[in-house]
Amino acid sequence: MANSDGNVDWRSMCPISSALDVLGDKWSLLVIRDLIIHGARTYSQFLEAPEHISTNILAARLDLLTCIKLIERTNPEATSRNNAYRLTESGAALRPVLEALGKWAGTHLADFNVDIVKLS
Amino acid sequence: MANSDGNVDWRSMCPISSALDVLGDKWSLLVIRDLIIHGARTYSQFLEAPEHISTNILAARLDLLTCIKLIERTNPEATSRNNAYRLTESGAALRPVLEALGKWAGTHLADFNVDIVKLS
Repeated sequence: MANSDGNVDWRSMCPISSALDVLGDKWSLLVIRDLIIHGARTYSQFLEAPEHISTNILAARLDLLTCIKLIERTNPEATSRNNAYRLTESGAALRPVLEALGKWAGTHLADFNVDIVKLS
Repeated sequence: MANSDGNVDWRSMCPISSALDVLGDKWSLLVIRDLIIHGARTYSQFLEAPEHISTNILAARLDLLTCIKLIERTNPEATSRNNAYRLTESGAALRPVLEALGKWAGTHLADFNVDIVKLS
């Protein structure tokens, strides 16, 4: 994982491993998902997502994703919690990853009898 | 995360969230990656990957991915550490996710000056 300064301890030169070095957790891609769906999102609006992200995890992920330039604050002068966020070009480019994950889950997690609703 | 019995505490009905409930960590998709590249892999061979997965994390991920039926043991009678693993149909279907992750990283992690080698 990248730290809050945006420094990443890369495990290898494999691009898949490197992607997971910065995105390999349960929450970062959900923040990206909300921005792809909604375009921009305030700190409070992220908390309304059905996964109930905690405030400390949300603040940490927003800081991290800002540091690694996948999202940016709409008002650079305001604090993290009084800001809104939008995707950068690099963040928006994650759409195919999320689409592939969603498509896979919609087909292959059915064995778990989870009632998955397709978003699109 | 799914536990070792394969039970998953789903955070929501969103397919992206559900995919991350079972795959949202730094290591699970690297195990899948190795199986996509090599077809089958023994416990010892997984340890040779350049990311240096630890033995306890590897054993836990192999058990978890087996429980949720993304991989299977080639010899169901042998123990975890004396077995080889291959992808199930559901595991093999993750190829587009890994391709999207790798393609994204190859393009958008260049800002970090990481010398990413494309596996193709």
